[in-house]
Parts: sequence; C-alpha cells; structure tokens
Amino acid sequence: MSDQSLLDNMHAYWQAANYLSVGQIYLQDNALLREPLQRRHVKARLLGHWGTTPGLNFIYVHLNRVIKAHDLSVLYVAGPGHGGPGMVANAYLEGTYSETYPEVGQDESGMRRLFTQFSFPGGIPSHVAPETPGSIHEGGELGYSLSHAFGAAFDNPDLLVACVVGDGEAETGPLATAWHSNKFLNPALDGAVLPILHLNGYKIAGPTVLARIPRHELAALFRGYGYEPFFVEGDEPAAMHRLMADTLDAVTGRIRRIQDDARVRGVTSRPCWPMIILVSPKGWTCPPTVDGKQVEGSFRAHQVPIADMNQPAHVALLEQWLRSYRPHERFDEHGKLRANLAELAPTGTRRMSANPVANGGALLVDLAMPDFRQHAVAVAAPGAVDTESTRIQGLFIRDVMRLNMHNFRVFSPDETASNRWDAVFDVTARCSMAEIDESDDNVAQDGRVMEMLSEHQCEGWLEGYLLTGRHGIFSCYEAFIHIVDSMFNQHAKWLKSANQVAWRNSVASLNYLLTSHVWRQDHNGASHQDPGFIDHVMNKKAEIVRVYLPPDANTLLSVTDHCLRSRNYINVVVAGKHPAPQWLDIEAAVLHCRAGIGAWEWAGTGEGDPDLVMACAGDVPTLEALAATQLLREHFPLLLVRLVNVVDLMKLQSPDEHTHGLADEAFDALFTADKPVIFAYHGYPALIHRLTYSRANHGNLHVHGFKEEGTTTTPFDMVVLNGLDRFSLFANAVSRLPQLSDHVAGVRRFVHEKLRAHRAYIVEHGEDMPEIRNWRWRA
Amino acid sequence: MSDQSLLDNMHAYWQAANYLSVGQIYLQDNALLREPLQRRHVKARLLGHWGTTPGLNFIYVHLNRVIKAHDLSVLYVAGPGHGGPGMVANAYLEGTYSETYPEVGQDESGMRRLFTQFSFPGGIPSHVAPETPGSIHEGGELGYSLSHAFGAAFDNPDLLVACVVGDGEAETGPLATAWHSNKFLNPALDGAVLPILHLNGYKIAGPTVLARIPRHELAALFRGYGYEPFFVEGDEPAAMHRLMADTLDAVTGRIRRIQDDARVRGVTSRPCWPMIILVSPKGWTCPPTVDGKQVEGSFRAHQVPIADMNQPAHVALLEQWLRSYRPHERFDEHGKLRANLAELAPTGTRRMSANPVANGGALLVDLAMPDFRQHAVAVAAPGAVDTESTRIQGLFIRDVMRLNMHNFRVFSPDETASNRWDAVFDVTARCSMAEIDESDDNVAQDGRVMEMLSEHQCEGWLEGYLLTGRHGIFSCYEAFIHIVDSMFNQHAKWLKSANQVAWRNSVASLNYLLTSHVWRQDHNGASHQDPGFIDHVMNKKAEIVRVYLPPDANTLLSVTDHCLRSRNYINVVVAGKHPAPQWLDIEAAVLHCRAGIGAWEWAGTGEGDPDLVMACAGDVPTLEALAATQLLREHFPLLLVRLVNVVDLMKLQSPDEHTHGLADEAFDALFTADKPVIFAYHGYPALIHRLTYSRANHGNLHVHGFKEEGTTTTPFDMVVLNGLDRFSLFANAVSRLPQLSDHVAGVRRFVHEKLRAHRAYIVEHGEDMPEIRNWRWRA
Repeated sequence: MSDQSLLDNMHAYWQAANYLSVGQIYLQDNALLREPLQRRHVKARLLGHWGTTPGLNFIYVHLNRVIKAHDLSVLYVAGPGHGGPGMVANAYLEGTYSETYPEVGQDESGMRRLFTQFSFPGGIPSHVAPETPGSIHEGGELGYSLSHAFGAAFDNPDLLVACVVGDGEAETGPLATAWHSNKFLNPALDGAVLPILHLNGYKIAGPTVLARIPRHELAALFRGYGYEPFFVEGDEPAAMHRLMADTLDAVTGRIRRIQDDARVRGVTSRPCWPMIILVSPKGWTCPPTVDGKQVEGSFRAHQVPIADMNQPAHVALLEQWLRSYRPHERFDEHGKLRANLAELAPTGTRRMSANPVANGGALLVDLAMPDFRQHAVAVAAPGAVDTESTRIQGLFIRDVMRLNMHNFRVFSPDETASNRWDAVFDVTARCSMAEIDESDDNVAQDGRVMEMLSEHQCEGWLEGYLLTGRHGIFSCYEAFIHIVDSMFNQHAKWLKSANQVAWRNSVASLNYLLTSHVWRQDHNGASHQDPGFIDHVMNKKAEIVRVYLPPDANTLLSVTDHCLRSRNYINVVVAGKHPAPQWLDIEAAVLHCRAGIGAWEWAGTGEGDPDLVMACAGDVPTLEALAATQLLREHFPLLLVRLVNVVDLMKLQSPDEHTHGLADEAFDALFTADKPVIFAYHGYPALIHRLTYSRANHGNLHVHGFKEEGTTTTPFDMVVLNGLDRFSLFANAVSRLPQLSDHVAGVRRFVHEKLRAHRAYIVEHGEDMPEIRNWRWRA
Repeated sequence: MSDQSLLDNMHAYWQAANYLSVGQIYLQDNALLREPLQRRHVKARLLGHWGTTPGLNFIYVHLNRVIKAHDLSVLYVAGPGHGGPGMVANAYLEGTYSETYPEVGQDESGMRRLFTQFSFPGGIPSHVAPETPGSIHEGGELGYSLSHAFGAAFDNPDLLVACVVGDGEAETGPLATAWHSNKFLNPALDGAVLPILHLNGYKIAGPTVLARIPRHELAALFRGYGYEPFFVEGDEPAAMHRLMADTLDAVTGRIRRIQDDARVRGVTSRPCWPMIILVSPKGWTCPPTVDGKQVEGSFRAHQVPIADMNQPAHVALLEQWLRSYRPHERFDEHGKLRANLAELAPTGTRRMSANPVANGGALLVDLAMPDFRQHAVAVAAPGAVDTESTRIQGLFIRDVMRLNMHNFRVFSPDETASNRWDAVFDVTARCSMAEIDESDDNVAQDGRVMEMLSEHQCEGWLEGYLLTGRHGIFSCYEAFIHIVDSMFNQHAKWLKSANQVAWRNSVASLNYLLTSHVWRQDHNGASHQDPGFIDHVMNKKAEIVRVYLPPDANTLLSVTDHCLRSRNYINVVVAGKHPAPQWLDIEAAVLHCRAGIGAWEWAGTGEGDPDLVMACAGDVPTLEALAATQLLREHFPLLLVRLVNVVDLMKLQSPDEHTHGLADEAFDALFTADKPVIFAYHGYPALIHRLTYSRANHGNLHVHGFKEEGTTTTPFDMVVLNGLDRFSLFANAVSRLPQLSDHVAGVRRFVHEKLRAHRAYIVEHGEDMPEIRNWRWRA
C-alpha cells in the first residue's frame, strides 16, 4: 500500500483536523497560537464533544486516501454526530467550508471565525446538522446512522457510504437491527455501505456493552450479522495509521470484488460485506490525565476534557495539548493548510464534504407521474358503491413504481399486501438478498418493496433515500407508527433547519400512509388501536407537516398524487383498507381535496343558513356522520342540516398558525358563528378543540372521537364504545337544538333502544346487525 | 431423560391444546365434535392467529415436564402474543382458567364457552392480554418480550422466565438489542431467562430475516450475543418431542450449573447462558394445503388457515383437521381433559398460568419510605438560594434505594450521573456482568442502577420489573423519551385493562423523571429540544396518567415521594438539573403539591381580585413568569397581579375529564372569569388550550411555550427564541390590559431594547447578560 511518507503526511493532516477540533471547542482568539495562550483567548462557556472526534478525524483522513487512490464517491455518515467539530474541521481543511460559507475563509481570520462560531449564539450547532456540508445525518438522538446509510446506498450503485457507528449508539434497538440491512442491499444495483464500529469504550459515564465482551464474541456477533469484521485496534498513531491504511485497502478491494462479481460475473448470492471495528482510546491524543484523573481513554474525555479555565494550570495544559498537534507545521503563516497536506484531500465533488448526494435536493429528479384518474372509482351516486380505498391507491402506487423504478421505493413492516397494495407486486417484488424459497410470495433480489418487521428500519431507510434525492412512501398500521415518533421528530427538525440553509435544495416529502386504523382494528384489539400520531405530528412546525384524512378512494387518489409531487413536507395520510362506501366521483374528489374542506351539498338540506352543522374528518367518522345526518333528516324533515367534510386537517387552524388555515370569515361561513357543530373525528377529540380554540363558534363545537375504548369486537361496536356512532351523534345533535327540546327524551329512548339491540345482536352473532352492515345513504 | 410413554402423553396433551386453539378460532358449537361438523357450528367471523400457536403449545407442554421434574417456578412470556388461543388453551387445560373464570368450566359447556368467547364481542381479546392468567405481556405491538422477561427475572432468584421470541419480532430494533440483557443479569441474585427463538419462517406475508440466513450464521449471531444456542429443528412430531425434551434437560441443567457456580462456588464471571432455537413449520399440524395452495409451513398459515366457511369442502377440511387431534381420546365424555393427560401439568402455583409473579400486584411489598423532608432545601425567602433540583431528588432516591435494595431499581440510558443522581452511587453502582475495568466509575456486578444506551431496554426492563411486583424509576432526557412513546401506549393500555380485571392486584406506578429538558438543552441544540411527551401522555386514560411540573427542589421532593407511593399510574415528572432559584420551603412545597395548583401570595400584589393573572407551569417558565411579574410590579405599582403556579397539570382539566380537575368555581376563583391570563408553560402551548377549552375564561388565556425554535445557544436565548422570556410575557400582559393602553408602545420599545441588548451581548460573549444571570426575585 502506501509509503511511510504518505502515512506521515496523513498523520499531520489528522493533527491539523484535531487542532481545528480542539480550537472550535475552546478558542475564541489566538487561533494560530501566535502568542502564549491566555485565559482571555478561551471561550467563557465550553461546549462540544471531544471524545469521539479524533476517531472521526482519523477515519476521515484515511477515507480521503482511498477516495483519491481509487476515485471513489464516498458519503460519510457520522453516527456520533455530536463529534461535530471533526466533521466541520474536515470540511474546512478541504475547502468546502469556505466555499459554502465565504466568511469562514482559509486564513487566520477565517480560522478564528471557525472557532468562535462553534456552539455559539448566532453560530453553528455543536452537532453535525443541516448546516454541515456533506451531511445527511444530524447528531443528537442516536440509533439511525446505519439505516440512513443503507437508505442512501439504495439505487446509488457508484456510491460508497462510510458509516461510523459509535459503540454507544450500537446499544440502541434501531441500530442493533440495522446491521441486518445487508440482507436488502443488492450489490449489482445498489451502492455499498462500509460500517465502521468505533469502539472507544465509553458512553457519557459508563462503559459500552460491545467494548466489554471478548473480541471473539464481538467478531462472532458481526459474522452472525453477515459481515466479515476487520479489527483496527491500538493507540500508537504510527502503527494505527499503517493498520488502518492496510485494512481500508483490504476492505475496499473486497467491496470492489463483490461488486464486480455481481455486476460483471452475475453472482447472485448474498455477499459477505466487510466492516471495520476501530478500537481506539476515547478522546485519543488529549491529555492522558487532568488533575490526576485519567481522561484520555476514559469517559472523562466524552465532552470537554479540561474544564474550569480559570485555573492557570488548565490553560497551560490546553496550550500544551493544542501545540502537540504542531499547528505551525500544519498551517502556513496565513493560517492556510500547507500545500503538502492539502493535496491529500480529494478535489471537487470527490470531497466527502462536497459529495452531491449529501444535498439530495440538488439531484432530485421529479417523479414521472401517471394519471391517477385512470383508477377513479365510478361513483354513480354517493354511497352507491363500496370499495377498499387503499386497494385503489395501490393501483396508482403500482403505476408510479412502474414509471420510476430506480427513483422510488415503497417501505412497510411486512404490511404491503395486508394494506391492500398487492397491485405493486404486478411490477416488482419484496426485496431480499437473503435466501429465497420457491414458496415465497413476490420476493426477489431486485425487489423494490422494502419490508422488514421494523418500523425503525423502514423510516430510517426512507429518510436516507429521500435525503439523497429520491422518492418514497411508507405504509404502516396506524397504531404502530408511534414506534418512530422520535425519528419523525428528528426528521421534521432536520427539514425545518434545512429550509433555513440557503444552499440546501428541497427534497421529496416523507409520505406516510397510515391504515389498518383505529376503527378497523376491532379484530386485533386494544393494542392496535391508537390514532395519536396525528397529535404528535401537529406539534411540529406548520411549514413542515400536513395531515390528510380522505374519506374515500377517489379523494385518497387525489391526496396521494398531491403528496408525491410535494417537497420538504411530512405528509400523513390516514385511510382505511376495508370495503367502505364511496362518496365522491373523481372530479368532485379533486375539487374537494383542492379546497381541503367543504360542505357536501348532497348530504345536507340545501343552501342557506343551517340549524346545525354535522362535521366529519376520516372515513369511518364520515360514514357515521352521514348516517346521523340521515337520521336527523328522517326524524326532523324541517331541520336544516349542513354536512362539512374535512380532508386537510390544517384547514381548521387559523391562517397565522398554518398556511392552509381558513380565514375566520371562511371558517364561520362553513361552521356558522353560533349554531351547534357536531364533529365526528377520526382521532382523539382534543385535537379538534386545540385546532379551533380561537374560532368564534368554538364554544358550540362538540367533538366525538376516540376515547381510548376498544377491544376485540365488531367494527360498529368500536364506534359505539367511543360514542362516535350515528346514534350518539344523532342524540347529541338533537340535544343541542333548542327547537327540538320536546324531542330530546324520545330521541334518547330511540337511541338507547338501538344501542341495546346492537349489543344484544353482536353478543349473539359476533357481527354487526344487518341494519348496520347493509346501511346505505339515501338522499 | 423421559421414557417414550411420557413423550406420547405429552404429544396427546399438545394435541389437546391444539384442538382447543383451533376450536377457539373456529367453533361456536359442537365443541366436542359429537356430531359431524356443519356450517352453523362455525363462527360467522373468523378471527385469530393460528400460525404461531402450535409452537407456543409445543413449548408449553415441554416446559410443564421440566417444571414437574425439577419443581421449577417458570413464567411464560409469549412474544408472539397474538397466539392468544394457545395461552388460553393451556391455562384451561391446567385448570387455572376455570378457577379464574368459573363460567368457563372444564366440561362441555365450559369448552363451548371457551370457544365462543374468543375474539367475540363481550368475550376475550384475540391476543394475550391482562385477562389471560399467567401473562404479563400483551400480544400486539412486537419488540418487548425479551426486555420484559429480563425485567421479571431481576431480583427473582428462584424464577425461570421462558421467553418465546418470534422470528418476526426478532427483526424489531428493541428485540435486537434486548439479547444484550444477559450482560445485566446476575446469576447469583437474579433469576434466569431462557430465550426460545421460534423460527417458523414467515411474518404476515414475507419470509423472516433470521430464517433465511445460514444456520451457522444464525448460531454465530447468538454466540456473539453471548448465548450458547441449542437447535431444535424439524417437523416430525415424535422426533421433535424427543429432541425438545433432551434439549430442555440440557439447558435447564446448564442453567442450574450456572446458578450453582454463582451461588455456591461464587464464580463471578459472566456466564454463557443457553438459548433455544426452535425451527418448526408455521401453522404446524394444520392442513398442508387448502385449495391447492401450501398452508402449513407457509405465510398462509399466519392467521386463519382455512377461510370462507361457506364452502362445504372447507367445513369438511376443518373437521378433518380438528379430528386429527383425536378430541375423544384427549377429553372424556364430559369434555374434561383425561386424567392421564391432566397429570402432566404442574399443580397450584407451579402452573405457569398461576405463577404469582404474573399478578405482581399480589406480591407487591410497599417501599420502605425515608423522610424526604430530610433533604429539604432551606429557603429563607423565595429565590434566596439556587440549587440543582434533581441533585436534591437524587439524595432522596439514594435513601429509597438504601432501604429497598431488592425491591427497587433505577433505570436510565447512561444518564444517572448526568441527571445529577450521583448520590445513588453512595449505596450502589451501575450494574454490569460484562468486563469491568479498574478505571470504571461505579460499576459492579450487583449494581442496581440499570444503564444501557437504549430507552427501549430501560422501559422494557422496568415494565417487566413492575408487573412482577416491584418498584422503580426511569430518568431520561426529555426529548428522547419519545423513543418509547409506543411502549408507553402499550403499558397504559395494559394498566387500563388490568384495572378492569377483578383478580389483578394493583402494581407500582411507572415513574418517569424527564430532565435535561427543552429549556436547558441550549448546549446540545435542536435535536435535544422536545417537550412533546406530555402531549402524548395526555391522550391516554385519565385514570392512568399523571403529569407533574414541580418548579423547584422541594416541590420535586414532595412529588417524588407521592409518585413512589402511588399504584397503577404512569407518573411523568419534568424537572431541571441545572442550578436554579428555589421558591418554596418544604412545608409550603408540600402544601402546594397537595393542592397541585395555587396562587403564590408572596409573588402577587395581595388578596382580592387581580387585574391580571400570571400563570406558570414548569421550572423555567416559573422563573420567567416571576421575573415578568416583577417587571409589572416595578413599572405599574398600582396594578393588581396574581401569580398562579401549576404543579399538577391535570388540575387544569374539568373534573369530568380527570379526577384531579378543578371544579369550574375553583378554577374561576384562581384564574378569574374575565381577566387576562398570561400563561408561561413548559411545553407546546396548544396543550394548555386543549386542557382549558371549556373554562369560562378560556378566551382570555394567552399561552407562551415551546414553538419549536431552538439551536445551540444560551439558556436565556432559548426562552427568547420561543417568546417565553420575561420581557415578552411582560409586553403581552401590558397589551392585554385596557387600563394600560397608553403604555403599550412604551413597553414595546423597552422590551425591544432589552431583547436587542440580549442578542448583542450573547453574540459577543457567548453567555447571557449579567442582568439575566444575576437576576433575583425582589418582593
């Protein structure tokens, strides 16, 4: 491999990166140490994480060598993203940082700016963030680096993703299963992922699990995960440089052979990909001890190794540490990296900090969009036909897949068929590079349906796929999408910050279909009944989140088309998969979805001011609201009722809270300023109150929704248990109308009798009454 | 081991269990097949999961044998809990079910009831649930069985937890890291966990990952996880019975030797625990094919193997399947299990379905509670002293630990010290059975602080520990508790259902301390800033959830004491760990916490009706609200201001929504019916609107809270970015008071200038202005 002088230069480059990393954590002046270090040169508040940083820098310079040697395209995913100083330092050393942020130039004042901006108000975050060139992965919440890395590698055959996994992160559940992603990576069609487990022994305070099992056990674990582990272990830099360089040569050679086998020789079995286990001291090269206590190689190096800079001895120790990297040999008199070191870095887009895939929006190719109207359900009259909405959506998804086979993937924890998207299997299969049996159903090595029973993997893969400039959709049982609540949070935060970074281009939206929803999990029971993800989503920035509740198949088609075309959003679509009545023909559906909310004239009693508004959002609530409206119209033919259906939940908010929000006048025109509104809602009722609390008519809004009641029962019993059934809506409506006060007791008796009959029937027959099952809308 | 006749009887017992399982899924009559099966004997709606059930039953009968042979206490955790029919069938066979539910007797009518109640309205859920005797683990959301199992085994030295992990569940993240729990199980002090990976090859529709890697890779994986895997593989029952029996003898012998080594011979290294990999066909013993398609051994056996019972051929096939288990040889003429089979089951509390640990509340021993007042912070005057609230709490937790060393554990993802509970290390250490280095800080094999960098593990272990009758507390960074949103959901649902099961006793509450909260994650940036867990929690049943926001150390002590004594709740306590002013002396704190909400007389302008209410919930909002109140009093000495502090968030709700809710009169007395209320809240403002929307004065409520703005900055800048700072509160208050309308412009200028000065200062100095840092409350 490489000669000693190259390794010596790489060591010097590493020292330059380490110097800049320590400088970011500590210095606010005297960036080049032109004078003896003094207290006033050091920041008042010391923030940042040193512990992982020298390891990240070590890996970086070694990857640079193989990139140059083999003209590789490498994306660096730093799992320990709190090692932000290291990633920033390297982007600065190779020039990308100054190109991106000209005020941080490659000279002394630029270096000073580099140092002062770090973790400083008005500056940059302490972790890797959207502001960091070359990054698709925020440091902060741990667990998702490897899923992101694989997501980036899918359909990027020329890309190598080097993914550093900290041994702390390796303890998380999502990361522990992410190793299995290698069963879903096709060496012919996808890029490669090189996982580098960075075993530096400690978390914040305690030892890590993987550092404290015997090496043979650790090696067995990764062989069991299907990798060939290569150990790079030590603390003596010279030996480590040689070992790391030899190892990287070996593993990149191995990767090349695997890809050649698949691409040239057509080998079709799952390869055993290499991975590296880098064992190095935590905080490597910082002072071995501070105040008599071990720091290098211990948990005390995790954040700021030398604290309390009011002790002169600490200032001296910091200076000694900084000077150990020989800044005047690494940088010239102007503060620029010396040419013999600068030439070690790749150039242009081969620089990891300038790899275009890390700004995926710039590479984004619009989806070729088929016409969703081709799958329109013919609806001769409202409620005249039943269908499974997501099955119709599946036809459209199939067409999208067919037209965008290398730019679009479908993700689901083994629920693609269960969620009625079987049609997708007309054009592709489930992806698996593991063993495939003859009896398997639609499984292939080049399948584009990504199914693993891990919502974390689905979400992480999809995020990585989107952030590198592609498109996708994730279908999930509604209750279990909560598994990725925290991942959703982090992605929403990423998008919000990325919107504020001028050089980042918009990426495709993250689209969720939530189905197998609360109202039709009667057969699976309470554990499968939870509509709360919508509430969770609504806490995030209005410019990022969208929630749609299309009431039937044609509205679902229209909403899906819209979501797939959108950018930089997180779109949540909730829709049922069971046969259900269809309400709108396709053109009415498109218009309704465009408005997001509207009165359904055919369901109400006509124009003019109503006595009561029956509102609904969600497919099952819409059915119940319509049935309740019919009861009202049958029992009280003179009553004026308006039915309002909400597809776009954000319409309920004020325009100053969400750009979709209806103006107060429009809201009042729909919901009236003073008439009772009975609102049948898919989820927890509190959300509707929260969205509408500032509306004039809020005091008259009576919301029925999920009250956390449910078990294994019938579909209609689910709505009865939660008071969302037509009879309860009807009774509540009547009770709110002063003009019907004489009828309240009679209606209560009627409703009581209906619900009693329902209970008796289901307990005897185990299914809903024919009156319920066969109910049809009648105008 | 056992002779052939015993194995033959075990096979018959297994067939009896399988018969009862199929019967539950299909039959509503003709339970004993006394007459030829007809359509009318079969349920109208077929629900349930057959696929995993024969495997669960197979394991059950084999565990029964070793329980009897060695007088073992075994808890059965069924990861594939949707195999509910199997667990119910076994509880019925060994008599527990009829003892618990006498209407389901061990006779023909009882068997009919057993069948008809399953997945039927008014009956029992299709999954293992709180209603199921012997269970602590709901089937539904997958991923947590093994963490639950280890939680149950901690401090239960005589218990063996047999934990069946489905190969679907094994793909989830939480399960993938849960295997590492063996590094935290002490063979001398804890019980044993026997994981049984049930490799039956398929999920709902696709193949499983672990079934499609070579067996040597699978074995390496589990060796890497630190287990000795024993394979039991096949589909021929007789051979499988012998193999399973021999294997169970081997592994129980191995477990006994490990425990003897540790307990008798004092061996102190981490043992290599055995585990079983059971490879059997999915849906084992069901019809091999239906309508010409493979069912047994395929994904088609996942739920109901033969559907559409309107086809007579299907009814005949079902009858043939049912009769293959020879019901008339297994049950006597009255429908009771024949005596030669019944004697195979253990008796009394040795029956897995009657193991007392599965009804942990019955075993619960109250914590010996130290006096939290011993750690009271002396507060001579409000704001006179600063302290770190959670550090004071840590002293109390230490005392609780000292008095309850085998009945209480502390759980955290490596944050016990970071969260300022260092004092706990005075009496115990972090737990680890992995290698311990000399330089490690407070790590010991018998440590009782459970730290692994996996919120899933912390939550799962704690749930298992609580449900088997012990106590604990989980401290977590506030933002990252979202990682366990879905686990919280499932536990809340379990508690709600368990409350409705007469024979289940109350268990200790699940207690969260959420610290390192949104307002003091200025140094870690946006990824660490999220107060939304409270919103998530508030969607669950009011009888289960409690949220407390103690404003200082003494209130935190009082709240902690209350939570640790409580039962069947999930208590969420949010409190800061950074030095902050203290407001109440201990007696005032106790009274304030008892009330949950109250006016702080010393902060307001005295008795009588105020012009304005300044309300606050949370430590940082309380500080800002007090500072704003001081500004109001300084600038407008004649203004009448009341300060209301909320500790117990549920006080804001109506009493019909939550038992803690204030009556409207009491609410109005505090917040007035018509005066402006400026509310400084810890989390997302919408929650306060949602909790108070029905209150008379809701229209005058102006909430300041987290608006999803944040980065790496100063602590005060965090509140400024979100408009929660004292100046913004002050300005808003003034703008709401008609009597101060002349002053609005002037106050706006004042506030604008203050915020401008703040910005300028932090950008220059990187820390907050002395005016902010040194601010003190002045009466």
